[in-house]
Amino acid sequence: MELPSFPEQKDGLNLPFRIADIIAKKRDGLPLTAEEIKHVVQAATRGHAQDSQLGALLMAVRLRGMDPEETLALTKEFVASGCVLQWPKEWSGILVDKHSTGGVGDKVSLPLAPALAACGCKVPMISGRGLAHTGGTLDKLESIPGFSPEQSPAQMLEILRSVGCCIVGQSKDLVPADKIFYEMRDVTATVDSLPLITASVISKKVAENVSALILDVKFGEAAQSPTLEEARILANSLVSAGVSLGIPTSALVSNMDSPIGRCVGNTLEVIEALECMEGAGPDDLRELVMHTGGHLLWLCGQASSETHGSEKIARALADGSALQCFRGMLEAQGVPSEIARTLSSTSNLRTASHQELLRVEKSGTVKLIRAKPIAETLNALGAGRSRANDPINHSVGAELLVSMGQHVEQGDPWIRIHYENPQLQDEQRKYLQEAICIAEMPCFIPLPLIREIIPSQCEKEDVLAVRREGEIN
Amino acid sequence: MELPSFPEQKDGLNLPFRIADIIAKKRDGLPLTAEEIKHVVQAATRGHAQDSQLGALLMAVRLRGMDPEETLALTKEFVASGCVLQWPKEWSGILVDKHSTGGVGDKVSLPLAPALAACGCKVPMISGRGLAHTGGTLDKLESIPGFSPEQSPAQMLEILRSVGCCIVGQSKDLVPADKIFYEMRDVTATVDSLPLITASVISKKVAENVSALILDVKFGEAAQSPTLEEARILANSLVSAGVSLGIPTSALVSNMDSPIGRCVGNTLEVIEALECMEGAGPDDLRELVMHTGGHLLWLCGQASSETHGSEKIARALADGSALQCFRGMLEAQGVPSEIARTLSSTSNLRTASHQELLRVEKSGTVKLIRAKPIAETLNALGAGRSRANDPINHSVGAELLVSMGQHVEQGDPWIRIHYENPQLQDEQRKYLQEAICIAEMPCFIPLPLIREIIPSQCEKEDVLAVRREGEIN
Repeated sequence: MELPSFPEQKDGLNLPFRIADIIAKKRDGLPLTAEEIKHVVQAATRGHAQDSQLGALLMAVRLRGMDPEETLALTKEFVASGCVLQWPKEWSGILVDKHSTGGVGDKVSLPLAPALAACGCKVPMISGRGLAHTGGTLDKLESIPGFSPEQSPAQMLEILRSVGCCIVGQSKDLVPADKIFYEMRDVTATVDSLPLITASVISKKVAENVSALILDVKFGEAAQSPTLEEARILANSLVSAGVSLGIPTSALVSNMDSPIGRCVGNTLEVIEALECMEGAGPDDLRELVMHTGGHLLWLCGQASSETHGSEKIARALADGSALQCFRGMLEAQGVPSEIARTLSSTSNLRTASHQELLRVEKSGTVKLIRAKPIAETLNALGAGRSRANDPINHSVGAELLVSMGQHVEQGDPWIRIHYENPQLQDEQRKYLQEAICIAEMPCFIPLPLIREIIPSQCEKEDVLAVRREGEIN
Repeated sequence: MELPSFPEQKDGLNLPFRIADIIAKKRDGLPLTAEEIKHVVQAATRGHAQDSQLGALLMAVRLRGMDPEETLALTKEFVASGCVLQWPKEWSGILVDKHSTGGVGDKVSLPLAPALAACGCKVPMISGRGLAHTGGTLDKLESIPGFSPEQSPAQMLEILRSVGCCIVGQSKDLVPADKIFYEMRDVTATVDSLPLITASVISKKVAENVSALILDVKFGEAAQSPTLEEARILANSLVSAGVSLGIPTSALVSNMDSPIGRCVGNTLEVIEALECMEGAGPDDLRELVMHTGGHLLWLCGQASSETHGSEKIARALADGSALQCFRGMLEAQGVPSEIARTLSSTSNLRTASHQELLRVEKSGTVKLIRAKPIAETLNALGAGRSRANDPINHSVGAELLVSMGQHVEQGDPWIRIHYENPQLQDEQRKYLQEAICIAEMPCFIPLPLIREIIPSQCEKEDVLAVRREGEIN
């Protein structure tokens, strides 16, 4: 039976809203008011809502959706649940960040944050750990001995002052409501909800108090959004929420059928990121870093055009200034000086004790390399976690030895698997072979990863105001 | 991000199913297997499922539904979560019970259980407390000093042996899974879910181990199901589940726009039930008791036809044998002998300190008396509870002084409100006036409450087998 809705009783209990009524409203597909959303988020943060109620509400939101107004209200209440980082006034306009919805082999943040810092930006990047088949930036960085993602707001300020960028874990003081909902979404099958993703991503960036933001929304078999259309909808939702909350925000929509670069796995990805910061490394990774960074530099007024921005990023990667910032950041975040100051792609990071080559089973053109079987197998081998706090083995990973579009002969090695314990099983070898698709077709050049750019919908005046505060080099 | 579905990991954790995967399946509208339902119910009962997960699953079930096969599996697992009552072999065929989906002024169980006992049945009735605007049978009985609904299975056996009927609260040993889900449904806005109602109602009756069952499914403004069509669907679901689990089960579909009888409120309803057992009382109440009991006597083989059954019940009400059983039951359930043995409709049960008459505002025919404003106002005055375990005032209630279809003159008193503290407010007086609808129309005889009977779908052979075990008087 439904609880009574007789107004006297509610007043008597001093409750402006009953959570069950709010759930019922969303269950029936009705939009929630800003006050109702505030009530729920506050109740969740203060422990006044039952977990069962939050689970039911998340599922109702997942199945019934939220309109942009509700999504914005949810995002605002997430922000209001905690602190907002404060920065020196003179940094206004140059504080930037990037968020990716998660991809296999996505090590873009590692070269991007220091490249942006080398271009004069301040990058207070708050990142996450990996769950499911996509790795987390913090896990990758923890392949480097001594690296500590736990930095207080005061420490972040100091690192930004001295180095220009940091990559840290989420502080307990920032967006505590998101932490509650995020962990709950994971166990209640409500992760893939547009408004819930939007509120989660944008609230954290608003709490970072950045001047400009770029989002890399992935689509494809190994992404949260399987189709371009879905990714475009999510990208628009994110951009709209970011802009509504006063942050010039753009989004890239990029493909995630295949791994980014050639390496998957924490240590291997750090090495590949170092190659990128040495001006080398795979083309697709460098292009993604250049375009993301270039757009962001233009957006925050540090470049006169996206092309100009991309050139600046490319220069920072080529001339070693990005690598210097990266090394400085590592040192500031706990990596011993003797390691941090000399770290390069040829440094002796711990690698796995076993390596095995898999070979192509028929001749032809590599039509596609599927990220998902690779990532799932590596996770089972210990590269990732199935539950928060599971231990991971940073040395587990894979190196791709072929590229999409190239010709291969039967028996050519195409992937090298790095593993320790558990051992690679026959079933996994078989599953991995499903990752390489060979066809009788001409060789081809793969499409660029970025398929669309959703530009910031800020009023031009706003963007210009932001730019005027920054300094165009 | 979704957790990985790579089979290796699940095996490694010795989990045949992950609850998040089961939730996701229902979220996507797919049917769950019996094994998946078993896994969830066991996890819930053993405390291995997070409350947020159960809340999300309940909402997914509420919005996506369950097919009859899933509903049956859920009902079975509810039963399997606890004990099943055991009765002497010779009672096979005569153990009967009734369940109502809840109505305003629904005191049918009070005369029905003893009337059935007087006709030779054994009635191990497990009942509930009121929540929302419909009162609970246990709350009504607790208006009688000393009455205790807490009776162990051994005590129930003894009372059935000596008196023939008992009306008790749900034991912790019976259907503990239902207790978990029921309380959760109440706060998660998932009460009105066909499969969840079905599993909850039928599992308790299967655990009672009865030989025949009748369900009174209400529809109307003051019922869970607003329309006849919805009530019919629920009735069919309940009958189907009951029959599938081996219990000959029929359902009545009856109207719940107006209160049953003339009294609403715990003490007042006990008095009206006593009038019924004295062979008097309002016609609609007596007819509901006769038809429900008559059908049940026929269903369990204690009457040769429904009419014959109704006659037997009418006799038990008229000749005082039902009242004798009721008094015996009260005495066996803790009511002091001097009260129990002489209790009648003129006994001095505690009444409210304040009474107020409301008057008809215009002349005409009483087209409708709406139960909902009356029940909601009485609840606000303390007759019911808005949260489990709220205290209630048994003496708060209302007496209707007019009948539907009769002519009234402006200024005629139509309802007497019994209240104490809080006092009746002007706003409530106004709301109560919305309960009486006067129209310029000829006087009429109201439709009977029972609109449809969904007969047990048991194979005739099964029903006959049950009948052969009983004795036809």
